[in-house]
Amino acid sequence: MPDSVERRASGPREERGVLHARILESARDSFAAHGWAGTSIRAVARGAGVDPALVYHYFGSKEQLLDAATEMPADWAAGIRNDWTMPLDRLGEALVRGTLRNWSNERFRPLLLATLQTAAHEPRTREKVARVFAGVLMAPALERLDADQRLRRAGLAATQLLGIVMMREVWRIEPIASMTVDELAAAVGPTIQRYLTDDLD
Amino acid sequence: MPDSVERRASGPREERGVLHARILESARDSFAAHGWAGTSIRAVARGAGVDPALVYHYFGSKEQLLDAATEMPADWAAGIRNDWTMPLDRLGEALVRGTLRNWSNERFRPLLLATLQTAAHEPRTREKVARVFAGVLMAPALERLDADQRLRRAGLAATQLLGIVMMREVWRIEPIASMTVDELAAAVGPTIQRYLTDDLD
Repeated sequence: MPDSVERRASGPREERGVLHARILESARDSFAAHGWAGTSIRAVARGAGVDPALVYHYFGSKEQLLDAATEMPADWAAGIRNDWTMPLDRLGEALVRGTLRNWSNERFRPLLLATLQTAAHEPRTREKVARVFAGVLMAPALERLDADQRLRRAGLAATQLLGIVMMREVWRIEPIASMTVDELAAAVGPTIQRYLTDDLD
Repeated sequence: MPDSVERRASGPREERGVLHARILESARDSFAAHGWAGTSIRAVARGAGVDPALVYHYFGSKEQLLDAATEMPADWAAGIRNDWTMPLDRLGEALVRGTLRNWSNERFRPLLLATLQTAAHEPRTREKVARVFAGVLMAPALERLDADQRLRRAGLAATQLLGIVMMREVWRIEPIASMTVDELAAAVGPTIQRYLTDDLD
């Protein structure tokens, strides 16, 4: 499609969508690379090739920009809910594979990185992590697991998945960084399985 | 001891030690709370009640200040080496208890927090984490574990311990944050034990 046609096809609403998305992409990159304190509206605007005033116009504040930049898409949550529909005795491996699948998804990865990399210092993100943890990650557990200790079971599973993600995807420390999905599913799946269904005392 | 006596007893060398320690304490607090980008020499100096020039005089640069602020004391490493001397079949629980003991130590905790909270964005800290991981946490594993997969075994154990620390000590997300040392030793000890000594394929 010639450039002129594309330009004619996109009215003001489309243009707004494009700039909006470019600002969010720039914000995610900056939050992931430099954290909360290391990110400025000015730098995000520069990265997106827009005026800082437009960032304020669309998002209002740095806090709201972070909120928008770390808002996980609906199909991410749907994928996790789907992982939780696996037969109970194969859930451990399914959750390991699902976690690694989400981190290798090119749409989800920048959002997940920006979330983990700002949660350390921004109470707003930490609260969101806790909320997502309870709403997306724990909610299916409440339906699938025995009433006894089910919050604790899901919480323990989350610690192991988080540790794998920090070492493999965020810090890239060996030898974990080079382990394949199959190797991690075999090694870590039984841990998750035990947390979800075995005796913990 | 009257103030005048204490003053007379402390010469220039003692005074230097006191200011040096106060700057490091202020630096750890700031790195832990605000990360790498959110910490300035000026704010560290203000927190320590000294002139910024003195911080530069003692530490040279923000990078060197971070290095000094996250330099783990010798008795921390000695404690971990000692945990690794436990009988092989009780090593899993010993490493969980040792990790939580280190995080409840009031000298170690600020250093560990500053390290984890800057590792996200400062390659210098991330390299140090990888170095400490290899030198302090993995080295005893190389002596105690079977040659087959021992780096991978120690690495997997580290992911689980890291995940517990992030959820319980750094982010304080429930229900993990409220679990006692005994409860975590019982729930997570077998995971570490399996990674160290059982079949992983």
